[in-house]
Amino acid sequence: MKNEKTMDKIVSLAKNRGFVFAGSEIYGGLANSWDYGPLGVELKNNVKKLWWKKFVQDSTYNVGLDCAILMNSEVWVASGHLGGFSDPLMDCKECKSRFRADKIVEDFLTEQGEEVASADGWSNEKLEGFIKENHIKCPKCGKENFTSIRKFNLMFKTFQGVTEDASSEIYLRPETAQGIFVNFKNVQRSSRKKVPFGIGQIGKAFRNEITPGNFTFRTREFEQMELEFFCKPGTDLEWFKYWKDYCWSFLMDLGINKENLRFRDHSEEELVFYSKATSDIEYKFPFGWGELWGVADRTDYDLKKHMDHSGEDMNYLDPTTNEKYVPYVIEPSLGADRVALAFLIDAYDEEELEGGDQRIVLHFNPQIAPIKAAVLPLSKKLSEKALDVYSKISSKFNVEYDETGSIGKRYRRQDEIGTPYCITVDFDTLEDEAVTIRDRDSMSQVRIKIEDLEKYLEERIK
Amino acid sequence: MKNEKTMDKIVSLAKNRGFVFAGSEIYGGLANSWDYGPLGVELKNNVKKLWWKKFVQDSTYNVGLDCAILMNSEVWVASGHLGGFSDPLMDCKECKSRFRADKIVEDFLTEQGEEVASADGWSNEKLEGFIKENHIKCPKCGKENFTSIRKFNLMFKTFQGVTEDASSEIYLRPETAQGIFVNFKNVQRSSRKKVPFGIGQIGKAFRNEITPGNFTFRTREFEQMELEFFCKPGTDLEWFKYWKDYCWSFLMDLGINKENLRFRDHSEEELVFYSKATSDIEYKFPFGWGELWGVADRTDYDLKKHMDHSGEDMNYLDPTTNEKYVPYVIEPSLGADRVALAFLIDAYDEEELEGGDQRIVLHFNPQIAPIKAAVLPLSKKLSEKALDVYSKISSKFNVEYDETGSIGKRYRRQDEIGTPYCITVDFDTLEDEAVTIRDRDSMSQVRIKIEDLEKYLEERIK
Repeated sequence: MKNEKTMDKIVSLAKNRGFVFAGSEIYGGLANSWDYGPLGVELKNNVKKLWWKKFVQDSTYNVGLDCAILMNSEVWVASGHLGGFSDPLMDCKECKSRFRADKIVEDFLTEQGEEVASADGWSNEKLEGFIKENHIKCPKCGKENFTSIRKFNLMFKTFQGVTEDASSEIYLRPETAQGIFVNFKNVQRSSRKKVPFGIGQIGKAFRNEITPGNFTFRTREFEQMELEFFCKPGTDLEWFKYWKDYCWSFLMDLGINKENLRFRDHSEEELVFYSKATSDIEYKFPFGWGELWGVADRTDYDLKKHMDHSGEDMNYLDPTTNEKYVPYVIEPSLGADRVALAFLIDAYDEEELEGGDQRIVLHFNPQIAPIKAAVLPLSKKLSEKALDVYSKISSKFNVEYDETGSIGKRYRRQDEIGTPYCITVDFDTLEDEAVTIRDRDSMSQVRIKIEDLEKYLEERIK
Repeated sequence: MKNEKTMDKIVSLAKNRGFVFAGSEIYGGLANSWDYGPLGVELKNNVKKLWWKKFVQDSTYNVGLDCAILMNSEVWVASGHLGGFSDPLMDCKECKSRFRADKIVEDFLTEQGEEVASADGWSNEKLEGFIKENHIKCPKCGKENFTSIRKFNLMFKTFQGVTEDASSEIYLRPETAQGIFVNFKNVQRSSRKKVPFGIGQIGKAFRNEITPGNFTFRTREFEQMELEFFCKPGTDLEWFKYWKDYCWSFLMDLGINKENLRFRDHSEEELVFYSKATSDIEYKFPFGWGELWGVADRTDYDLKKHMDHSGEDMNYLDPTTNEKYVPYVIEPSLGADRVALAFLIDAYDEEELEGGDQRIVLHFNPQIAPIKAAVLPLSKKLSEKALDVYSKISSKFNVEYDETGSIGKRYRRQDEIGTPYCITVDFDTLEDEAVTIRDRDSMSQVRIKIEDLEKYLEERIK
């Protein structure tokens, strides 16, 4: 349908223009893995750079960190990921569908009218026994022929060292947050920060999801941009609000359409037991509302867990009041791939032009646009002059040079990849040392001296 | 010893000032894994940003890419990593030393005067049998009591999906290069690049090294900055020289001491069989010369391997000459952690000051310095004015604010973390709207108007 943003259109543009390719494509891919092409990597890098600037460098409260993906397994014992980050799975042997055994039992209990339909903490034996005794059927095909239960931990396991036994088992981190918690003291001491302060990190994390999907929205390998903000207990709800607003303004400043964003507060029942408050910023994707940013008041849960398990004192001693406490933590956690996808979708537009033509255009905020400007000579005879213009601005901005095809086609191509400014070099340029700048969104053109070009762009791109 | 750069001094400064911490430290670490602290992450990010700018954005030949770490295993079959990237290992049960079985056999054959002392392609059974029959002894302790052989592939293996069997085995990439090769056609098509052109990538890679060590020089998890440059066969040795020079100038421009750098060409015997030429840029670390950058002419080896194995046509059709060929590849491959370590070591200095005092100073090039300037009020009464100065420049540069301790101590601290400029706010500032700027290296001071501050820094930091 015309003028409708569908995932098909986005995925196809992403592939054709070099934003995102299917991972390992020449070998048939690898279940929902994706590679960022020449434009995609610039887009994602811009988003990461802007997050880092706003959340780490510009905030006087915060500093950065970059931890290893491979960590000592005790980290995941303490955090609860090794014990609790797993699902009890079983397959229907008839229709090959896969289910969570606890979910099947809970659904059955609910149907039976039980008030508290929970199978929390049931052993695999108890779950299997209950399913057999009650002749629970496959929700898909109605048969009664399940495999036994397999514990399925969502962490990717690997082996470090020369043996493949339990002692050498380690895991790919399922989140970047724990690297920050275990370094709390190291960072506080070396940076001499006083509470309240925060530690930001950008990095890859891995979850062996059973059902990844929706393009780059849910993938097994993904990149997080997380801040863990440490504050005094009692001040946490204030800071929770502060960071919610701060996150919201990041998206607003970069021009995301307000109608496509919303806060969704977690209800009492939905809240993880250690969290005092959690709110998600959701984006309206073509496939529905989906979480971009989770902002959570995690209390002192994580630091205390590591304090208990490692023996390291995680108390903070306030140098002015002499109070001693384990700080509370506010965590705004954003998926870099998700938010880059949201920016791409939000920027996408199909516009009717005068004369009945149509153009596809990405209305990126200039700060996140992969290419800031394109230098386009009207004739190949103008190459020398045009390359001269190109070299004047290319050390400052990521600029493309293109002399192939008609000028109209070149404008369309730049519109489709979201380049905010097209700079046309024509024969008059040789005389008046001026070029024409075409604005992507309004398509209006202005004539400007070459010597003023850098300043013109700088003011508009920041 | 005074004025000697030792790894102990570097590691200790790195930890105390927040450049690098031991990974998972509160749990006793994880064999030679490291986390970058607040200053280390800025240093490494600066290095990565500068590489990306010079090798991807500023070079009209090149574009960027960012591939997934987890790839289809067929990639590693084709590249030879799955078959060939493994060692047959055995332990001496007496002295617990670990050896490569093929190496022991080859040494034995050489001693026996064999002309071609090769155990290439021998099965484990053949190796074990030969060692037993010939009563080969442990090279370390002289006993004859080996374990059986274990194949030890250097790739980290993990499992994707819900089962842990061979069909779900995948690997953490041991290098970023293969992601570029498998995307050669996608990138060429979508970016409309013509040969010669290159594809650059920055990303993590993993090798299950038996003996990592020397701080961040050799780690199992590391970050690569790789360029694969595709050119016409026959032009490859010219381009090989071009990129060698280009890499060298990157290090020179950022101020690495020339005496600590050298090229080392691989000899005929050392060259991998498919490489026409390889040259390493080595840095003189406190523990000896070590490879920073490997520049290799890889011919058409990789693209042809993938063409054979995937069936994807990797030929390039030259649109002007109509020639069809599989491009040759020049690969400059740099370790981000290694080069960041080299910059840190190279910048380190202990200086005698007038009056017999000593200072530790990091003479970073301003472009890679984690903090560009520090704003230091001479008295806490000047906080308001100093914060005003801070806010004027902090949106443009990564700036620190510090009002604790004597000015001398604050200078020493900034010297130790390599901050090029200290900006002192004193009581005169309130009258003359000027500040004093102290240069890290010369320690000379100039008085400058606040309104000229941004320009002053910009000219010196770029």
